[in-house]
Amino acid sequence: MSLEFDEQLSRLQKPNRNEMTDEEFEVFEKNVDAMKKNWGFINNLFKVLPLNASEYIGFLNFKNSLFNEKCYLSDADKEMIGLVVSSTNGCMYCLTTHGDYLRGFTGDPAWVDQLTYNYRDAKLTEKQRALCDYAYFVTDYPREIDGKQVEKLREAGFNDHEILEAAFIAGFFNYTNRWVGTIAPVPNQGHYYHNREKK
Amino acid sequence: MSLEFDEQLSRLQKPNRNEMTDEEFEVFEKNVDAMKKNWGFINNLFKVLPLNASEYIGFLNFKNSLFNEKCYLSDADKEMIGLVVSSTNGCMYCLTTHGDYLRGFTGDPAWVDQLTYNYRDAKLTEKQRALCDYAYFVTDYPREIDGKQVEKLREAGFNDHEILEAAFIAGFFNYTNRWVGTIAPVPNQGHYYHNREKK
Amino acid sequence: MSLEFDEQLSRLQKPNRNEMTDEEFEVFEKNVDAMKKNWGFINNLFKVLPLNASEYIGFLNFKNSLFNEKCYLSDADKEMIGLVVSSTNGCMYCLTTHGDYLRGFTGDPAWVDQLTYNYRDAKLTEKQRALCDYAYFVTDYPREIDGKQVEKLREAGFNDHEILEAAFIAGFFNYTNRWVGTIAPVPNQGHYYHNREKK
Amino acid sequence: MSLEFDEQLSRLQKPNRNEMTDEEFEVFEKNVDAMKKNWGFINNLFKVLPLNASEYIGFLNFKNSLFNEKCYLSDADKEMIGLVVSSTNGCMYCLTTHGDYLRGFTGDPAWVDQLTYNYRDAKLTEKQRALCDYAYFVTDYPREIDGKQVEKLREAGFNDHEILEAAFIAGFFNYTNRWVGTIAPVPNQGHYYHNREKK
Amino acid sequence: MSLEFDEQLSRLQKPNRNEMTDEEFEVFEKNVDAMKKNWGFINNLFKVLPLNASEYIGFLNFKNSLFNEKCYLSDADKEMIGLVVSSTNGCMYCLTTHGDYLRGFTGDPAWVDQLTYNYRDAKLTEKQRALCDYAYFVTDYPREIDGKQVEKLREAGFNDHEILEAAFIAGFFNYTNRWVGTIAPVPNQGHYYHNREKK
Amino acid sequence: MSLEFDEQLSRLQKPNRNEMTDEEFEVFEKNVDAMKKNWGFINNLFKVLPLNASEYIGFLNFKNSLFNEKCYLSDADKEMIGLVVSSTNGCMYCLTTHGDYLRGFTGDPAWVDQLTYNYRDAKLTEKQRALCDYAYFVTDYPREIDGKQVEKLREAGFNDHEILEAAFIAGFFNYTNRWVGTIAPVPNQGHYYHNREKK
Repeated sequence: MSLEFDEQLSRLQKPNRNEMTDEEFEVFEKNVDAMKKNWGFINNLFKVLPLNASEYIGFLNFKNSLFNEKCYLSDADKEMIGLVVSSTNGCMYCLTTHGDYLRGFTGDPAWVDQLTYNYRDAKLTEKQRALCDYAYFVTDYPREIDGKQVEKLREAGFNDHEILEAAFIAGFFNYTNRWVGTIAPVPNQGHYYHNREKK
Repeated sequence: MSLEFDEQLSRLQKPNRNEMTDEEFEVFEKNVDAMKKNWGFINNLFKVLPLNASEYIGFLNFKNSLFNEKCYLSDADKEMIGLVVSSTNGCMYCLTTHGDYLRGFTGDPAWVDQLTYNYRDAKLTEKQRALCDYAYFVTDYPREIDGKQVEKLREAGFNDHEILEAAFIAGFFNYTNRWVGTIAPVPNQGHYYHNREKK
Repeated sequence: MSLEFDEQLSRLQKPNRNEMTDEEFEVFEKNVDAMKKNWGFINNLFKVLPLNASEYIGFLNFKNSLFNEKCYLSDADKEMIGLVVSSTNGCMYCLTTHGDYLRGFTGDPAWVDQLTYNYRDAKLTEKQRALCDYAYFVTDYPREIDGKQVEKLREAGFNDHEILEAAFIAGFFNYTNRWVGTIAPVPNQGHYYHNREKK
Repeated sequence: MSLEFDEQLSRLQKPNRNEMTDEEFEVFEKNVDAMKKNWGFINNLFKVLPLNASEYIGFLNFKNSLFNEKCYLSDADKEMIGLVVSSTNGCMYCLTTHGDYLRGFTGDPAWVDQLTYNYRDAKLTEKQRALCDYAYFVTDYPREIDGKQVEKLREAGFNDHEILEAAFIAGFFNYTNRWVGTIAPVPNQGHYYHNREKK
Repeated sequence: MSLEFDEQLSRLQKPNRNEMTDEEFEVFEKNVDAMKKNWGFINNLFKVLPLNASEYIGFLNFKNSLFNEKCYLSDADKEMIGLVVSSTNGCMYCLTTHGDYLRGFTGDPAWVDQLTYNYRDAKLTEKQRALCDYAYFVTDYPREIDGKQVEKLREAGFNDHEILEAAFIAGFFNYTNRWVGTIAPVPNQGHYYHNREKK
Repeated sequence: MSLEFDEQLSRLQKPNRNEMTDEEFEVFEKNVDAMKKNWGFINNLFKVLPLNASEYIGFLNFKNSLFNEKCYLSDADKEMIGLVVSSTNGCMYCLTTHGDYLRGFTGDPAWVDQLTYNYRDAKLTEKQRALCDYAYFVTDYPREIDGKQVEKLREAGFNDHEILEAAFIAGFFNYTNRWVGTIAPVPNQGHYYHNREKK
């Protein structure tokens, strides 16, 4: 069954199948099929973004380059950074979907909810706290970034591969937060009830 | 001649050729060759980032997906957004390199310098001003983003393809600003003297 | 069974039964009994605050004066204001417990989670949005409060009794956020799993 | 003589005697009688708040629970916190009335005026300065509250009863500042000339 | 009697008569004599600043160029702007001395105290409010200054001479606030009790 | 040849020769003649300010009192402070003209451009960095100025004459930034191309 763009799911107009190449459309179908299998539904963002099809594929590939098996930090650490950044910026949609992901990775919905509110009072290892402090600082005080951020991450035990990756990830969510907030995709209700059992 | 990573050009350790696959290394060489041809030097950032080689290639591809011939906004408009975001965040390296690019695109160094300082008093068309106002707002007030940003861009005459792209671009520079500020690449002196003639 | 203060549940020392009058202790027991019946557990905050027993009773009475049947706004509207204020201030414990309350009042966990992230993209009536905008503004821009806040609430259809109550409630959470953040009570795990079914 | 609500003393409508129970009205009369005796005039706020009579009584009782003889900090220390919070938030009415109170407690109008402007350059004991720094921080940086605030107060010599009270008091003025700023009671001229002699 | 610099009245070292020319010293003596006659005491700032004698004379002349009979705005309007700027920046010494001046000009200590707290709820003509709004905005949001500030002042009825002067005056206090806050002169007690009678 | 005010070079009306005394006009002519000789053009600001002629002369004298041979800090250090302040406040015109001055003093356009973007990643001696940190702090956090700023400057090796001057200079640019931003003089194109050669 072919993906159809017949719902108004963001502030922008709906994508038009005719403006996409067959190759682009195939990427989408493959992508959303995976979602349907994993979640039982298609994350709405992915029905909105085909509006600018090739840029969307660029986003997908970019995301995959930072979230894959060859990465230095764990998926959970990267999603944690994502929640700290998105909470600082107040990005509702990102907190919704990435909260779901992190609940899936950790099996600890209580801890994840705490991160979406304010990481400071959540239970964190010293290394996790260093990542969160870093993510918060570069998000909220970009003009004041200096050598101390790298120093603190090193002191907490991170090597330079990990630090560069943490910087990319904090940057990644500062990127998504801006355009996601702008277009305001309608969040899938499913996310809020998903991965809600403590494991 | 092979690219060597023998200079300390950021806060992080130097990349190691041995940690890269031949395929990855080939991408870098091709990329820096193009720079040498165009500028006469290699943008230092590109000698620093092979530290996390596959993520860097992800960044390159991502950048290309937003800056190519099929895009909706002009290169100059996108670099203008980049300067507004980077000036708001105070990213020295990004203002250096993207200032150079935009001087190249416009042939108007005075106007570009103005954008790096504060776009508000620069000479701007109504459409350009709407883009700059948008870029500033989502950068500095992310928590307050709502429907008004899209409305204003539409009123200024942008269609939804362009608006989505503007959002991606404003996001893109909010991404680079965080990690570039963190690792602090040493800027090439060349950029400051390049494209400095009024055309 | 008597309440015992044998757990370290905040940054401050544990309360001491001997420093409380019997009358004060009775109030606590009655209060926590009600919680046990409703929730199956005692909100930890209420095991921490007997440290300053008479002030805690003052807090309880104060809270009751703003949340009772004679009030002008609905409980749901007041908890909504509470989430907006607490999200703006980043008060993890308040978002935890009052998120639970509001899920209970509304039976709509998805909507409540959205409010804890950023109310702007949640589905809101015009009147609800006016309350949220008000709560956000007085929380984050206290120095800039002027006549416009009352005007906007009136335009949205609120009478002066309701406006005064909204102001009290926005103030109430700006009060709790400061001391709750300071003492950092350990949140009960139960809250995160409570009232999580859509009704 | 019965209290009459015939003056327009805030942004909200005047209270109506008929909407109050006799019991509530009695509380007001007793309260304002005490003011007339002490000051020679009735603080206007107290002629405004009967609009929501039972909530106002809740406020009165709440205030009394934090300002009485069994409290841990001195009245002067608590009013000092109040001025720091109110100065940070720019609450004109609160600075007016609580400045008057603190002049009364200390007999030092010059010092009190300094606190209303900026406590940093006022003459303060180390303990007073720790309280002021605490009050400023939780008022202006609520999202960044963590364990350091309690630590610093302990280092300055405060015990946990006092710290909890300081937190309640800083919270209290963050509460009043929001609704007082919203309704904007007309300050009594008397306050500005009261307790103005150095003792 | 010659002025002597034998008191420690700021964070910086005391001025040294020997480092001043006779001409410079004469200016100081003349200046402080006038103060003694008007106030009965010498504003301490003027005993501190001879440390950099010729720069201090530069400051004196500069001040006189903005506060003299040929100016466009009234002295009271200019001191009002000064209080708004100094209150926004929290400059204790400037609020102390300029509060005294404005009490002298207006004979209305209550109104002046209100301005030092927050001008928004003080009684202001439309023109006064426009000046205060202007002063606040350029002080706290310098990066966002654009054409609207001049427009609003014109709409309120100011001509361009007055607008330029208002801009100079708002600038003047943003200048004094920085260095006065840095050196922290000890305020004369006398200011707090001076001009305290309603006229 | 007489200076004529026939161009619209700011948001305000053009100066009128008839409103100036001959003495005032002479000062202007002398001033602009010097510019023409040094730069080959007249800085537009100086054709705008005669609108309030005597205040403008006050500004000129004030500026000279802080920039002359008897000063304690070098001209380059003072212009560096000026760029840090103006970059923090986003004053386009000030960055334009003072960037030009500092390029002239240092012969290092690359370094100057870096200061206009963000001084933190520029190559700075410890003493220069202390001045820049000071200038940034008092500009952006005026309410939080306390004894630490003077301490840090002393630790970096500055004496009290230099510290007072640094404070005056940081203040000076906080002054110019406000009114220059307000009136928005049209920058001379010449500045952007001037002093652009590395020496």
